[in-house]
Amino acid sequence: MSVAQSNSAARFIAFEGGEGAGKSTQIEAVADLLRAAGHEVVCTREPGGTALGEAIRGVLMNDYDRPMPAMSELLLVFAARAAHLAEVIEPALARGAWVLTDRFTDASYAYQGAARGLGDDAIATLETLVQGERRPDRVLLFDLPVAQGLARAGKRGEGNRFDRETLAFHEQVRAAYLARAGSMPERYRVVDASDDMDGVRVQIERALADLV
Amino acid sequence: MSVAQSNSAARFIAFEGGEGAGKSTQIEAVADLLRAAGHEVVCTREPGGTALGEAIRGVLMNDYDRPMPAMSELLLVFAARAAHLAEVIEPALARGAWVLTDRFTDASYAYQGAARGLGDDAIATLETLVQGERRPDRVLLFDLPVAQGLARAGKRGEGNRFDRETLAFHEQVRAAYLARAGSMPERYRVVDASDDMDGVRVQIERALADLV
Ligand SMILES: Nc1ncnc2c1ncn2[C@@H]1O[C@H](COP(=O)(O)OP(=O)(O)O)[C@@H](O)[C@H]1O
Ligand SMILES: Nc1ncnc2c1ncn2[C@@H]1O[C@H](COP(=O)(O)OP(=O)(O)O)[C@@H](O)[C@H]1O
Ligand SMILES: [Mg+2]
Ligand SMILES: [Mg+2]
Repeated sequence: MSVAQSNSAARFIAFEGGEGAGKSTQIEAVADLLRAAGHEVVCTREPGGTALGEAIRGVLMNDYDRPMPAMSELLLVFAARAAHLAEVIEPALARGAWVLTDRFTDASYAYQGAARGLGDDAIATLETLVQGERRPDRVLLFDLPVAQGLARAGKRGEGNRFDRETLAFHEQVRAAYLARAGSMPERYRVVDASDDMDGVRVQIERALADLV
Repeated sequence: MSVAQSNSAARFIAFEGGEGAGKSTQIEAVADLLRAAGHEVVCTREPGGTALGEAIRGVLMNDYDRPMPAMSELLLVFAARAAHLAEVIEPALARGAWVLTDRFTDASYAYQGAARGLGDDAIATLETLVQGERRPDRVLLFDLPVAQGLARAGKRGEGNRFDRETLAFHEQVRAAYLARAGSMPERYRVVDASDDMDGVRVQIERALADLV
């Protein structure tokens, strides 16, 4: 559905990876660097990014009387994504901004497609329906051992439905992310997120250098 | 995704039509008749029917800072439907109940596909993804002139995002419903909803007679 017409200065970058990998920490630092270099930067996140998207995020993170069906979870994520694209991402790209998003459709492949078991085809169907040709120019995969990420995330305070999943679930998320990165090396860069914060930032700068 | 295994006694009936057509009024009367004849009857509605579905209904009926993208609306409806099928409809059909639902996927074709302009293909893609082979055994289309339906609905009190749409929108909904009923006469029955309540009930009994 999206128009997928970018200004040639525009860049669409997704920050991906498991809980506690450092995505939210680094996205602001990268935005500051890009702004200092004179770019317009829009920082956003999924699920969320719009008033409707944040309402959907509330529905997704909440607990109900029964476990949420995986297909409902997937469709809620894409409902938020459709608004995110129409109201935030496409307008920003059209005027030549850098859009940095804290998660995008790779998270659907990793969480709902792999860990929840819906399969890649269901995700690909919705990706085409909702995004048309729109894909990130670069996906930064923050990779680190699951236990290390969860330990970091635990320090952040109360967990949500996802933080509380089993170790096996998070291992499937990690493996799915790595498999996608491996199969599309031109679009993906794997960042060693177990590095310290400065080290991770330097890796990100290197991973975006060809796009600046 | 749905299992689509019905007990042979099971019947899946959708009550469809525009606002104020009398769906909610008649569904309870029909349920009472069927129960008196010894059937287990589950009455439900869309969007809704589960705790998650009612939360999604709240998101759908709410007003936001910007108009809701049609694709988000559609995906929210199917997110609720996936839970409705998994938690309510399929289990009831599996044990041989009659399931009467106040709206189902025909409403997606009429409202989001036709009136919002997303087209039938988008709906059909989601219908297959979420429902597998599951379709209603009978769709009762409550048809009446748009102005008459809206006048009835207006008496019900405060409207939602849909009640407040233009006349042209509701005319497109009506036309789309009639077109679908015309193209699948074995599954659809058109009920003249401008009739009085007793008259409508008699029409419904006739429209279900071959399934009892
Ligand atoms: N490279 C790092 N080394 C150690 N701790 C980190 C690092 N990056 C982030 N953290 C800390 O880990 C926690 C989770 O980071 P966060 O950016 O919220 O992760 P994410 O958004 O990927 O879930 C925060 O408390 C953050 O300060
Ligand atoms: N056949 C009928 N004739 C006159 N009024 C009716 C009839 N059926 C329902 N109504 C009234 O019209 C209003 C809308 O009916 P309702 O069942 O809520 O419609 P729907 O669920 O299709 O939107 C209610 O006030 C109801 O009492
Ligand atoms: Mg974060
Ligand atoms: Mg009603």
